[in-house]
Amino acid sequence: MSTWTLAQRAHKMNPSVIREILKVTEKPGIISFAGGLPSPKTFPIEAFAQASERVLREDGAAALQYAASEGFAPLRELVAKSLPWDVDPAQVLITTGSQQGLDLVAKVLIDVGSRVLVETPTYLGALQAFAPMEPVVVSVHSDEQGVDLDHLAQQMGTGSDAARFLYVLPNFQNPTGRSMSEARRAALVERASALGLPLMEDNPYGDLWFDTPPPAPLTARNPEGCIYLGSFSKVLAPGLRLGYLVAPKSIFPKLLQAKQAADLHSPGYNQRMVVALMQNGFLDGHVPTIRSLYKSQCQAMLAALALEMAGLGVEWNAPDGGMFLWVRLPEGMDAVELLPKAVDKGVAFVPGAAFYAEQADPRTLRLCFVTASVAQIQTGIAALAQAIRALQAA
Amino acid sequence: MSTWTLAQRAHKMNPSVIREILKVTEKPGIISFAGGLPSPKTFPIEAFAQASERVLREDGAAALQYAASEGFAPLRELVAKSLPWDVDPAQVLITTGSQQGLDLVAKVLIDVGSRVLVETPTYLGALQAFAPMEPVVVSVHSDEQGVDLDHLAQQMGTGSDAARFLYVLPNFQNPTGRSMSEARRAALVERASALGLPLMEDNPYGDLWFDTPPPAPLTARNPEGCIYLGSFSKVLAPGLRLGYLVAPKSIFPKLLQAKQAADLHSPGYNQRMVVALMQNGFLDGHVPTIRSLYKSQCQAMLAALALEMAGLGVEWNAPDGGMFLWVRLPEGMDAVELLPKAVDKGVAFVPGAAFYAEQADPRTLRLCFVTASVAQIQTGIAALAQAIRALQAA
Repeated sequence: MSTWTLAQRAHKMNPSVIREILKVTEKPGIISFAGGLPSPKTFPIEAFAQASERVLREDGAAALQYAASEGFAPLRELVAKSLPWDVDPAQVLITTGSQQGLDLVAKVLIDVGSRVLVETPTYLGALQAFAPMEPVVVSVHSDEQGVDLDHLAQQMGTGSDAARFLYVLPNFQNPTGRSMSEARRAALVERASALGLPLMEDNPYGDLWFDTPPPAPLTARNPEGCIYLGSFSKVLAPGLRLGYLVAPKSIFPKLLQAKQAADLHSPGYNQRMVVALMQNGFLDGHVPTIRSLYKSQCQAMLAALALEMAGLGVEWNAPDGGMFLWVRLPEGMDAVELLPKAVDKGVAFVPGAAFYAEQADPRTLRLCFVTASVAQIQTGIAALAQAIRALQAA
Repeated sequence: MSTWTLAQRAHKMNPSVIREILKVTEKPGIISFAGGLPSPKTFPIEAFAQASERVLREDGAAALQYAASEGFAPLRELVAKSLPWDVDPAQVLITTGSQQGLDLVAKVLIDVGSRVLVETPTYLGALQAFAPMEPVVVSVHSDEQGVDLDHLAQQMGTGSDAARFLYVLPNFQNPTGRSMSEARRAALVERASALGLPLMEDNPYGDLWFDTPPPAPLTARNPEGCIYLGSFSKVLAPGLRLGYLVAPKSIFPKLLQAKQAADLHSPGYNQRMVVALMQNGFLDGHVPTIRSLYKSQCQAMLAALALEMAGLGVEWNAPDGGMFLWVRLPEGMDAVELLPKAVDKGVAFVPGAAFYAEQADPRTLRLCFVTASVAQIQTGIAALAQAIRALQAA
């Protein structure tokens, strides 16, 4: 009889609430606003087919061989050039999706019991990536622009309990869709620097703006005090599993060692396909088509909400980009209770409670506006309104 | 000023010795037996091109979308069917290379200070994958067949210090090329079970046998007491970064949660390419060509060693498969001292010391016989013999 003894950290790991919800919503006929899936209409299948053919023909043996843990040099250079501050390609680490960036950062910066600060609410995947390293995750109050700076200072901790970093998603945040203003960014970077607090800036959605690009990243304002995480999942396709991080040179070697131990390197074949697309300027024409599609989908959802939720006491925001908007149900209503009723009516969402490190607001829920069609959005929001009415009547 | 505080574990992480050596050996003209790179001649570039075209045409949107953390269901089924014991596809987790399997196992089974047993010597990448979780790695004496069972029992530890698992690579081991006999496997599984010791069986090379397939895996003999790691890197190509693990159902959910937190899922596009190749029986014809090539390369290296090392007091083994053989220098000679002299003569290898968790044998070194051509093997082994003579004369 073999005896399996789990590590302590394994008890802190939990299945994703969202995954469990997604399983429920896989029933045929359910309109799902629950996932965070980019619209498959935006996947450049033909361009990938050409890129794959070219990579295998011109560079097949190298694309299929073991490779450097740092990533494919031309991709690191293209990433460095694409960023709006002075980035040395030697600071760019290619990761297996930006989720892996979170895992590597957690390994390198979090001890058992380390204080880690997050927004209220925050990206669930980050909480999951940090959990195995057993931090104490502490929420900072946040408004429609992100973290409250005075509360940040209060939550910072002191001495050996000083926070290791603040994890922040300034552009079209997952889950809320909110963005930080220029003024808040400038003030946050200044305050964090004064506090000696490193920032972990996650920016998977920054390119998905509707009308105007967001203000400069936090990292551009203080590169030595920030780690920046980027992704190709939203501008090209998630199925390649490619992201990157940019780190100060003092931290980079440890992140690289963690990367090497984690999976040796990200697939060189996939990295070359992205390079093939970036080199011929494909992204410059492609990303605007995603922006335009997502803007029209967002507008359709806002219009449907205005129509269907009238008089119900439901509130929501109007994001300037990204994939999500954030809804608040009337006083006394709980989104977790609403969900099964909504699924009965044929529509799904994620209760906001999933995204809080502590003290969840039970009235909130997240809607993704990019996966469903406009017609589905109209039908689905009407069904959601029916479910809310049914719960109010109950 | 931001203050970066590294986690304790970051201080236990180190750059790979092999990586540093490989940098030295990237000088043009160096014949390298140092890397563990499959021969690029074996990469089925044309088959991949066809598979890519087919996957993107028939299933492009799904291949490029986010996907299940467990892996692509048809690939899990094909893996389960390919294994020589009764495996439920629900026990198969697709990983980003088998290196990620080691990372996930470490997260789920290793606490700070946990005892982990390894062979002498052992795979360096496993030591690196375990290191961030801060185990105490304890070596078990090993002979030409692998671990010594009486020493295993002595090193097992008791009570809360009982070893969490034994990491073992029974087929054509990296670094030594040695394999475990049928009798040793049976005895190891029986002894481990009696000790309550889980086994972590790593089998990246098992398909690369020269004349006869190796005996059944350890896991086939006690599936509830073993985690099995497999890889597509050696039978298809490392650049796809695809491997898998098979775990008892009691452990699987935690490994899956660790996988989800680590990188959400392995690239669905790559997984579908492998399925396309496996479904049409490509591997059945392809793998024998790799076996045949590697056998002839191994024979060339053995012949060159016999010719060039005559009278030098150098010993080596003759593996039955895989990619590596193991050399022992004469009494008093140190492979680390030999390396720069060998590089001067135009040939590189990895000193065996890199592969010992403790008490390294300084006389050992690893030679990879699959990357260099037969002509390079002859030239390189002659150069290595010259370097040994030069060091003896010094």
